[in-house]
Amino acid sequence: MRILGIDPGIAIAGFGFIDKEGSKITPVQFGSIQTEAGTDPGLRLKQVYEAAVQLIDTYKPEAMAVEKLFFNRNVTTAFTVGQARGVIILAGVQAGIPVAEYTPLQVKQAVVGYGNAEKKQVQEMVRIFLKLQAAPKPDDVADALAVAICHAHSCTLTQKLNGAYK
Amino acid sequence: MRILGIDPGIAIAGFGFIDKEGSKITPVQFGSIQTEAGTDPGLRLKQVYEAAVQLIDTYKPEAMAVEKLFFNRNVTTAFTVGQARGVIILAGVQAGIPVAEYTPLQVKQAVVGYGNAEKKQVQEMVRIFLKLQAAPKPDDVADALAVAICHAHSCTLTQKLNGAYK
Repeated sequence: MRILGIDPGIAIAGFGFIDKEGSKITPVQFGSIQTEAGTDPGLRLKQVYEAAVQLIDTYKPEAMAVEKLFFNRNVTTAFTVGQARGVIILAGVQAGIPVAEYTPLQVKQAVVGYGNAEKKQVQEMVRIFLKLQAAPKPDDVADALAVAICHAHSCTLTQKLNGAYK
Repeated sequence: MRILGIDPGIAIAGFGFIDKEGSKITPVQFGSIQTEAGTDPGLRLKQVYEAAVQLIDTYKPEAMAVEKLFFNRNVTTAFTVGQARGVIILAGVQAGIPVAEYTPLQVKQAVVGYGNAEKKQVQEMVRIFLKLQAAPKPDDVADALAVAICHAHSCTLTQKLNGAYK
């Protein structure tokens, strides 16, 4: 199963496609969607949406996982990230892809094994899981891959619970 | 000029189309886009987006005005409203419509004359401006019309400043 992980944002949104076969996880493609500060905010949203549509069309994921954010930064930031998150989720739903959400706690537990893990530990585990030479940069890309890996693990768990693990 | 005002939200998003000719403002259509709680969040976003696309296609506004939100509710609410706001703005930008943003302070100043106006006062002024029998309900609809009226006033001001008032 191909999974698209997303770390949403308007200036930079990280994305990571991984393939999961049994317990094996392999990276397919990862990177970031970036828009320029100073550009009209509506146009930036359109750019993010169109980039997401194109990525989904190219790599055809069967599931999408997005980080659910609760961070304590200001409400204006939350609105801006929320808007970017909205158009990316829209791109997924329009393509008929189920979209799952995970909290940072869930991602850390799935990738590192405990919820208090530091950012560096998450990045290092992503590197090890995907057998990469170096941790993907910037952080947004590593975070996107981490949420994709989290989804891969949760799927396994769900399938196990349903007795349909393969 | 036809203006679409939006009060964004995922459970309910208010919309209001008004026509502005010189200093005359007339209501064209107003109401709300509603989605059901308990429905998949991604599907709700798609429903809001599709409703916005259809409204824009039907009433063909030349400008769109959206309330810029800074309220002090929790960050999770800000994300949810932000997502709905994102897909509605996307619908506008895709249709080639310029999207303006106004703070609640700007809307109150434009509609009532001072920034500390209460919600009831805004609703009453919207009713008077648009020569309606009763204030539009629910609040979201009145708020959407208020932001459209705010844009109508700001446009006038901008045109005056540019020496192009007509």
